[in-house]
Amino acid sequence: MIQGVQSIAFDQAPYLEKGASVVGKKEGEGPLGDLFDLVEPQDLFGEDTWEAAEGAMQKEACKLVLKKAGLKPQEVRYLFGGDLLRQGTATSQGVEDFQIPMFGLYGACSTSGEALALAAMSVAAGYGCHMLAVTSSHFGSAEKEFRFPLGYASQRPLSAHWTVTGSGAFLVGTRKCHVKITGVTVGKIVDYGLKDSQNMGACMAPAACDTILRNLQDFGRRPEDYNRIITGDLGYIGQSILFDLAREKGCDIREMHMDCGMTIFDQNLQDTHSGGSGCGCAAVTLAAYILPKLESGEWKRILFVPTGALLSTVIYNEGATVPGIAHAIVLEHED
Amino acid sequence: MIQGVQSIAFDQAPYLEKGASVVGKKEGEGPLGDLFDLVEPQDLFGEDTWEAAEGAMQKEACKLVLKKAGLKPQEVRYLFGGDLLRQGTATSQGVEDFQIPMFGLYGACSTSGEALALAAMSVAAGYGCHMLAVTSSHFGSAEKEFRFPLGYASQRPLSAHWTVTGSGAFLVGTRKCHVKITGVTVGKIVDYGLKDSQNMGACMAPAACDTILRNLQDFGRRPEDYNRIITGDLGYIGQSILFDLAREKGCDIREMHMDCGMTIFDQNLQDTHSGGSGCGCAAVTLAAYILPKLESGEWKRILFVPTGALLSTVIYNEGATVPGIAHAIVLEHED
Repeated sequence: MIQGVQSIAFDQAPYLEKGASVVGKKEGEGPLGDLFDLVEPQDLFGEDTWEAAEGAMQKEACKLVLKKAGLKPQEVRYLFGGDLLRQGTATSQGVEDFQIPMFGLYGACSTSGEALALAAMSVAAGYGCHMLAVTSSHFGSAEKEFRFPLGYASQRPLSAHWTVTGSGAFLVGTRKCHVKITGVTVGKIVDYGLKDSQNMGACMAPAACDTILRNLQDFGRRPEDYNRIITGDLGYIGQSILFDLAREKGCDIREMHMDCGMTIFDQNLQDTHSGGSGCGCAAVTLAAYILPKLESGEWKRILFVPTGALLSTVIYNEGATVPGIAHAIVLEHED
Repeated sequence: MIQGVQSIAFDQAPYLEKGASVVGKKEGEGPLGDLFDLVEPQDLFGEDTWEAAEGAMQKEACKLVLKKAGLKPQEVRYLFGGDLLRQGTATSQGVEDFQIPMFGLYGACSTSGEALALAAMSVAAGYGCHMLAVTSSHFGSAEKEFRFPLGYASQRPLSAHWTVTGSGAFLVGTRKCHVKITGVTVGKIVDYGLKDSQNMGACMAPAACDTILRNLQDFGRRPEDYNRIITGDLGYIGQSILFDLAREKGCDIREMHMDCGMTIFDQNLQDTHSGGSGCGCAAVTLAAYILPKLESGEWKRILFVPTGALLSTVIYNEGATVPGIAHAIVLEHED
């Protein structure tokens, strides 16, 4: 069951039973627009504040995934959830009504990987038949939390990301379907000493590289054993750094690499600079774009690697570095 | 293994191998002062900021517990950690150097329960022989994060808590010792609609009651089956509400109840109003005061119930309620 230094290979692999995605207007206008379960034209989602809007989005994603699976909240044993806001309030506000026993998580934009890992570990251990993993991010709440309120109309450097307004929810369980979670690689904090919160791709690329190479080593695989190696939100700059770092270690992943942040927006038409980011970015791309390809068998095995930058405005202003973390989930098609 | 509605009873109960506690000056002057592993007279712990001080404290607690157990960081499979700060930066700064694959958590002051639960679940599932669970809080960083910077010298109402400056670290594993974790009850969010962030005892008491009663029901136990039922930081006001709520449900826990927030400070001599609080409060009290009593067999079985108030200043200022959450850990003596 223990696999190598940081990984777990599940003897009884749990299934990724269902996924659901809820996004905002801009995401709906992007290349994946038609694939999302729900595109809400009003980014406030009927609420008064960005924070409440993000909570409402999580709630909607959970409702949708439960409906798809035909499950009631009380049939879900535990919930693993998180977001980018201080004290994870989008999650606590969003999931409160379901009354599912819950574990609050924080792994920045890697949280969807963290939640899926813990949900899979709990199902595989026999702690319950269905677990819910949910994460979200919102452009309005994230800009307020990490940069400047939208009303300031601050100019963004080209290295900056555009936080995805979106929430992805997933049911992990024992009910047979076409996608299973066969393994996880839990990430370490990797710190190259970077301090630029407007260039998070560079801050996260070393962690992505570390976790991907560790996964390959722990499982004795080569990059081509995966149809795709999919990072969360490295963006254009982070991707090029990841390629360089991996090549330095003798590993070429250019052919099978995909980044959710580069996939969700059209860089030229949507003015999103380095690409999409946020806890919601990897989650909604997984639910809307990646899962169907695994379900159909177009992809047989992929490595899903959400990446996070561990910063806060407080320690950023105090001069701290921005380290990264990435968790990897091995997803496989089953006939 | 699944026990009742929200609980797990471990077939192979993992051991709580070692605990370590690091605290500040005021905690050192309190009733438990002599029991802590390290009392640092300078609350900045040699750093320049409160945030870095809290990180340094976590690092010290981890170092101490590893030393007690004679383990190197690379012998620890996974780390589960959290704190109260936005984006959990005390933890990411504190544990980075150990390079242990990690899961970042947020459960407000219930995080020590959340971390111990996940560590125990992971050991019992065979995902590794040793897991590290660490949490912290710091009076200076918490006042800045949730209320006002210390320099403002704001007056505190009598219902307010005093955030404990402290970090507790625990090794959970398969190595036989005198304390084992036989079960956990994962808490739900409980919201009675309270909005007073200066009366967190009242906000958290309903969650504590819910989790304690659920634990008793799930395990088919009566309160007297525990030598102590120990909440994290309800304080004097929260305790009296907990007693009332439990009595309404036909359950009297007055005789065996203890609260870490009421134990760590001397209310009269130390001017701490409703009592101590914070992720560090329950953790250091467990390490310094509770564990030795379980090790010696003075207590045979206790229920450890850290309690958290899920607020942030942002949603507080937007008028949101302050719901609570509590996770329960069953700790038993083994000869």
